[in-house]
Amino acid sequence: MMVGLVVLVLMLACCNEVAKAEYTLDSARECLARQEDTIIFGLIERGRLPFNAPTYNYTFLTFLLRDSEAIQAKAGRYTNPEENPFFPENLPPSVVPHYPFSEFLHPAAALININKDIWKLYFHELLPMFVASGDDGNYAQTAAADLSLLQAISRRIHYGKFVAEAKFRESPQCYKPLIRAKDREALMKLLTSESVEKMVVKRVKKKAMVFGQEVTLDRDVKGKKYKVDPSVVSLLYQKWIIPLTKIVEVEYLLRRLH
Amino acid sequence: MMVGLVVLVLMLACCNEVAKAEYTLDSARECLARQEDTIIFGLIERGRLPFNAPTYNYTFLTFLLRDSEAIQAKAGRYTNPEENPFFPENLPPSVVPHYPFSEFLHPAAALININKDIWKLYFHELLPMFVASGDDGNYAQTAAADLSLLQAISRRIHYGKFVAEAKFRESPQCYKPLIRAKDREALMKLLTSESVEKMVVKRVKKKAMVFGQEVTLDRDVKGKKYKVDPSVVSLLYQKWIIPLTKIVEVEYLLRRLH
Repeated sequence: MMVGLVVLVLMLACCNEVAKAEYTLDSARECLARQEDTIIFGLIERGRLPFNAPTYNYTFLTFLLRDSEAIQAKAGRYTNPEENPFFPENLPPSVVPHYPFSEFLHPAAALININKDIWKLYFHELLPMFVASGDDGNYAQTAAADLSLLQAISRRIHYGKFVAEAKFRESPQCYKPLIRAKDREALMKLLTSESVEKMVVKRVKKKAMVFGQEVTLDRDVKGKKYKVDPSVVSLLYQKWIIPLTKIVEVEYLLRRLH
Repeated sequence: MMVGLVVLVLMLACCNEVAKAEYTLDSARECLARQEDTIIFGLIERGRLPFNAPTYNYTFLTFLLRDSEAIQAKAGRYTNPEENPFFPENLPPSVVPHYPFSEFLHPAAALININKDIWKLYFHELLPMFVASGDDGNYAQTAAADLSLLQAISRRIHYGKFVAEAKFRESPQCYKPLIRAKDREALMKLLTSESVEKMVVKRVKKKAMVFGQEVTLDRDVKGKKYKVDPSVVSLLYQKWIIPLTKIVEVEYLLRRLH
């Protein structure tokens, strides 16, 4: 039984669909740009709540996120190679109809999961930077906002696998010798585009200013306050998201010829 | 064991905290305005995914949302009188430390839950209005986006209980005779402020234009495309959110003197 029977409105295909049809470096970058919006919305929504320390009782938090991931695993979340669980041990199998996700990546991609690092970064470094102290009792909402933001950041960083594969396919002759020599440093240098990185950092700051502004019907006032400090967003990208994405890229490439 | 030990940054108290300290008509309206952002982010995020029909297999969807609500119930979500479950039957008790939520409302507030209506409206009317057709296999992500948006819409509509209580406390002498006479129509008229409603509808349209724009580093281009049609957002408010909030207000007031 279908809940919604008729879909009348046709809109543009979303970034997932475009990317899935054929991953290219351009389509991958477009998808990364769209993911920025999701991450910034997530930061704003988590920032709406105070720190809520009781949420971070370790047993409680892991139970909550592990069980939430288990439900999503049954719903097929991790059959999509763009998704990586935080608790990959003993996840239940998917019960939804099989979907033919792209086989763009080398199978070794499945071995790469740096969510343990992302978890530590998130709780120890990021949260205290943008969340107000205080306790308003909304622990379930806090954990849900954390999970959704963690998933968005994790997807962005692990998307490095797709970026690396697209870069490799564009110039395998440049990558192959470095992969064979296991030369991490040279690989890192080859896949780095400083101008693109600078542009991304600038763009996320601008997005944080646009999406985080108070919108009222009054004329726009100068001296705006933002819901999340735009420089926290650019720092997040500069210091963590971009470097971790590149680590995923290197780890992927090192396994690319196996 | 605490995951995040030190919170250094003090920011402004969030709308929840402000509202909790003392609900007034002004603070309630401020909180409703902040909730608009959450709803619009939710619409944009759900709109990022295509319709994904396999998500709407009834058994699958109810299992998924019911289990997610059960996890959040254990995490104390429904001990907050601002929250109302979609599946209130057999929810597990909270296992988190007791939080002293405000007792601003009359106890009869707990009897009012119009989530069945919100559910129908969401799946039958709203989704087809702003979601593209298509299937990209992301059923778990789709259901998670649906749940989060449903919860935001539900919170907004049931916040009518707080609005009604604030209005009642401002002029009990106007409300009491109408409540005693069970005069729904007169109550509806008394609590309606057309100018406020018009302002809200105008504001959410503006917010949809701001939050749903494509942000690039190029100069802003005229002829913008929006991620979710701003007129869908204003229609959602005008046709459903505002009227359903007022129904909650009337239902609450009718029980206010028991």
